[in-house]
Amino acid sequence: MYPNFAFDILKNDPKSRARRAKITTPHGIIETPNFIFCATKASIKGVAPVDMKTAGTQIILSNTYHLMVYPGSKLIQSMGGIHKFMGWDGPMLTDSGGFQIFSLGHGSVASEIKGKRMNNRPQTLLKITEEGALFRSYLNGEKHFLTPEKSIQTQHELGVDLVVVLDECTPFHVDKAYTKKSMDMSHRWAIRSLKEFQRLGEGGRQALYGITQGGIYPDLRRESTDFLNSQPFFGSAVGGSLGASKEQMHDVVAVAMENLTKDRPVHLLGIGGVRDIFNGVRQGIDTFDCVHPTRLARHGGALVKGQAREHLNLKNATFKQDNDPIDATCGCSTCQTFSKGYLHYLLHAQELLYVQLITIHNVYFMNRLMSEIRECLEKEENLESLEKQWCVI
Amino acid sequence: MYPNFAFDILKNDPKSRARRAKITTPHGIIETPNFIFCATKASIKGVAPVDMKTAGTQIILSNTYHLMVYPGSKLIQSMGGIHKFMGWDGPMLTDSGGFQIFSLGHGSVASEIKGKRMNNRPQTLLKITEEGALFRSYLNGEKHFLTPEKSIQTQHELGVDLVVVLDECTPFHVDKAYTKKSMDMSHRWAIRSLKEFQRLGEGGRQALYGITQGGIYPDLRRESTDFLNSQPFFGSAVGGSLGASKEQMHDVVAVAMENLTKDRPVHLLGIGGVRDIFNGVRQGIDTFDCVHPTRLARHGGALVKGQAREHLNLKNATFKQDNDPIDATCGCSTCQTFSKGYLHYLLHAQELLYVQLITIHNVYFMNRLMSEIRECLEKEENLESLEKQWCVI
Repeated sequence: MYPNFAFDILKNDPKSRARRAKITTPHGIIETPNFIFCATKASIKGVAPVDMKTAGTQIILSNTYHLMVYPGSKLIQSMGGIHKFMGWDGPMLTDSGGFQIFSLGHGSVASEIKGKRMNNRPQTLLKITEEGALFRSYLNGEKHFLTPEKSIQTQHELGVDLVVVLDECTPFHVDKAYTKKSMDMSHRWAIRSLKEFQRLGEGGRQALYGITQGGIYPDLRRESTDFLNSQPFFGSAVGGSLGASKEQMHDVVAVAMENLTKDRPVHLLGIGGVRDIFNGVRQGIDTFDCVHPTRLARHGGALVKGQAREHLNLKNATFKQDNDPIDATCGCSTCQTFSKGYLHYLLHAQELLYVQLITIHNVYFMNRLMSEIRECLEKEENLESLEKQWCVI
Repeated sequence: MYPNFAFDILKNDPKSRARRAKITTPHGIIETPNFIFCATKASIKGVAPVDMKTAGTQIILSNTYHLMVYPGSKLIQSMGGIHKFMGWDGPMLTDSGGFQIFSLGHGSVASEIKGKRMNNRPQTLLKITEEGALFRSYLNGEKHFLTPEKSIQTQHELGVDLVVVLDECTPFHVDKAYTKKSMDMSHRWAIRSLKEFQRLGEGGRQALYGITQGGIYPDLRRESTDFLNSQPFFGSAVGGSLGASKEQMHDVVAVAMENLTKDRPVHLLGIGGVRDIFNGVRQGIDTFDCVHPTRLARHGGALVKGQAREHLNLKNATFKQDNDPIDATCGCSTCQTFSKGYLHYLLHAQELLYVQLITIHNVYFMNRLMSEIRECLEKEENLESLEKQWCVI
């Protein structure tokens, strides 16, 4: 079903479920474990594709919801597809569009599925039915109806390599009965997504990921992974509510990973903290994505090793006359040239360039982390000792 | 007086005052005629120094006024000087700080000296005396007193290669008597600047430019150029009010250039249109500066040849599905990778990356223009036929 794609496990960690593998796509190879950066609206904010490559990036993602609302997937298709449109020739993934619809609908699903209520945003999600989700565009109030088929069609028009099924992002603050009902509907949506994917006939240009559901309930998680394993998806994504705390998230991921088939790549949706990545890798996660490294940069946060918060706040007055780079051992173009003092100055002077410079550092940081994890697995070295170099445990 | 600097004329145009020359500085050579880009607050907005270099840039400038107000020249000095601070290792110029003080003071000198009154900005210029100018910081209302000595000290602390004397930027809407009085004071300030420059003892690290005054009055212009020629400045700048129209500006520049000594580099302050550059080059101008190419980019304007307005407005709906680059003959990294349709999209989606991509194109465009002008002069070819390729005349 996926003639131009492959998933090859190169090495299994003897002490955990971690594996060193590679995903082959029509736009190149993704060495795993790896991290996927968010080019939400067909652009990494402030950073050109060539600089993403130089910073070691192998794969990026873009958000179907945003592109569907503007400029529209048909326009991008008419321009030769998203790779050509945005000047990125490496592998790409899109999500289904569901996350943002439910996120904007519930106030913020990012908070909601993590168990934090926050309902002060306009409610743009109008209706969820068996057929799909009706929502208003965040840009102009126009109504859109997203169905599993429509999501697959849109991702088909965008032309990315890795495509994800539409699911209902179940909120955290619902009971088990709602979670079960929602899971069952997401499974039916997954089947419809698969059918639409097959109907469109990709010619091997795209590969489809399913998403495990079941919230924080182990028996539902198992039911959902069994379902996923039984369907011809190329990869599996761990989604839905991952709990209210990091500990709960690790438990949820553990249950899902015990049961997911080992011969497919597994993506963990929306997780990007350094400790979380080590935990995920040990559970067998192959790819991660999160807005955190790039968004943090836009707020002046530079990722560093060995800090409890995993970053420095460069706005802090301590850095005013600091003539050292963010990290003297870092090989990124920012650390080669610029001091923390200059970045501190740019932030306070509101000089645009800080976005580019700090984002490049954070991207390089994540790529270096993933590369060292891969090297550790290749050499069958101890993940724990690597983790101790990167995190305060 | 300027041991590490040199100005060498390589070729004189037989049909005009144009010359192909080079300025040697401690941070490298500036091939002239050339264009100086504005890194107003120690940063080209949205573009890293390395990308400025790749786009062919030889020299940039920064604004003393802005840096004096924040972060302060002493901080930049303590960080190793402005080159190290901002990661630019090529030649740099700073202005005296005067232009912004008078600009913010009068509403806008950029309009004022071009003869357009516009007095709706807060008046931050509190007093001009023989001693100097008292003004309020645009950032926090703090009072600063800028004198000729203080300007030279500040530029000394910043550590640029080319330093400019403080002058009063005479408004356009004043009579000849005021212009004469203002010119005489600016001449006295120029002498004080020279003395302070000599007192500081640069060790050959910096070179000083004087500025011709005299507004639109040919006899005053001649008096001012005679004064400049008689003092040991390294270079001459054509400043003050250049008139209310392009024609008047060309006349004013012509009078100044007839009289300025030929053995010093001449800089024309604040002029950057393509036609104006051809006119200036023919008058013997060696360097130009203007915020226009970089500011225009931030408003979605891409410089192109052969258009009356000298640019395309990429926000325009015509470009929505335009799959061609800004200019298929342009070698810049933006034209190599991105379509006008994508840039149009980035502008409307308010995706930050457009600043970087369009600025790089405009910078490359100006550098290509200057490089073709230099080649034309080297080969003793016709400037007019080159101008016809670049401008609608």
